Amino acid sequence: MSDPILLTIAVLGGTGKEGKGLAYRWARAGYRVLIGSRTPPKAVDAAEELSMMLGGQSHIVGLGNFEAAEQADIVVLTVPYSAHRPTLESVNDVVQGKLLIDVTVPLVPPKVSKVQMPEAGSATQEARAILGKDVEICAAFQNISHQHLLGDDNVTCDVLVTGTSKDARAETIKLVEAAGLNGWDAGPIENSVVVEGLTSVLIGINKKYGSTHAGITITGVKKQATD
Amino acid sequence: MSDPILLTIAVLGGTGKEGKGLAYRWARAGYRVLIGSRTPPKAVDAAEELSMMLGGQSHIVGLGNFEAAEQADIVVLTVPYSAHRPTLESVNDVVQGKLLIDVTVPLVPPKVSKVQMPEAGSATQEARAILGKDVEICAAFQNISHQHLLGDDNVTCDVLVTGTSKDARAETIKLVEAAGLNGWDAGPIENSVVVEGLTSVLIGINKKYGSTHAGITITGVKKQATD
Repeated sequence: MSDPILLTIAVLGGTGKEGKGLAYRWARAGYRVLIGSRTPPKAVDAAEELSMMLGGQSHIVGLGNFEAAEQADIVVLTVPYSAHRPTLESVNDVVQGKLLIDVTVPLVPPKVSKVQMPEAGSATQEARAILGKDVEICAAFQNISHQHLLGDDNVTCDVLVTGTSKDARAETIKLVEAAGLNGWDAGPIENSVVVEGLTSVLIGINKKYGSTHAGITITGVKKQATD
Repeated sequence: MSDPILLTIAVLGGTGKEGKGLAYRWARAGYRVLIGSRTPPKAVDAAEELSMMLGGQSHIVGLGNFEAAEQADIVVLTVPYSAHRPTLESVNDVVQGKLLIDVTVPLVPPKVSKVQMPEAGSATQEARAILGKDVEICAAFQNISHQHLLGDDNVTCDVLVTGTSKDARAETIKLVEAAGLNGWDAGPIENSVVVEGLTSVLIGINKKYGSTHAGITITGVKKQATD
């Protein structure tokens, strides 16, 4: 199912730095990418910018969030936490039966280096509560600095993937790898608190140690052994 | 304050694998170490075993948990989650004014690879609720495989340290380094859910990828720069 030729990925909030970086990497890998925005002309601009970066050989289109979600096979949500619920409610009907990858981190300013999860336990579990059981939902990419994505550098930060089923996590890990990153199955959706919360920990580490793109890697595992 | 000669560390539950490994490393670094157990003769045996491993040059004594906590400057809790509350309640009076380092992971069998935090938010916050505001509390060492500790190998797993104050975290990081490990200030006690929950994620990764000692390292930070 992950054959790039057959799959269309919508990146909602795709004009932001994180979303644009992911869109760039998936388009580079040959996927059809729809950049969604609340302001469609901005999505069109972002799509043109990325197309130029990729030498015009890619398929990237800018649309409104709803249209992008409607036309996609896989929907990726990269919005600030304040737009999380309204964006999900606005696309609820057209994401049913699809895979949604939630990149949202529920940061609560001004203390963004303190973990402060919503009542549902995490943003991803909140998405689950809004969209219901017919949408497979994964959390991923929360800990990747956007500075790494919009370019061709190797990224020394792994991606932890949690989600509603093993198959959904495997599908998401394929997209992680297509983006040139290293993904790990980090377990059920209840574990999303770790993946999302780690972002606050890394923001705090950046602040304390004077860095700008702290990340994590998993050690002690030879991945090829059984996977 | 961290001069080994002046400091006594109690390791409650120190006859378990994790506690024994930490006791070994701190004794090796020159700290006075008290191994505590609910069954004092077991603590005495463990202390003798470690003393032999260290060639008799170390100061390690086995005691009951209460006596160990009473005589120590810093108290480290390495018990299974089922013993977390009763152990804390039993030493409450004698840890007041001290630093407590909580190594407990609130695993809920049989689904130990699923994050299931107590109502307080994490085991460390539960300890805070039990002991009150006069005890500084840090979370640390949850993600280190015990197989790494009871020996002299370099450990390629970093230690995330959360806690009630910056000073308490700095003090704990000194003990992390004394144990031959690399520690990071991971922020306030509310972030303990990430540190503790990561253990379930790593257990799941071990299971899925056929490994036995998955860990994490922080990437993208030159620690020496500002610390």
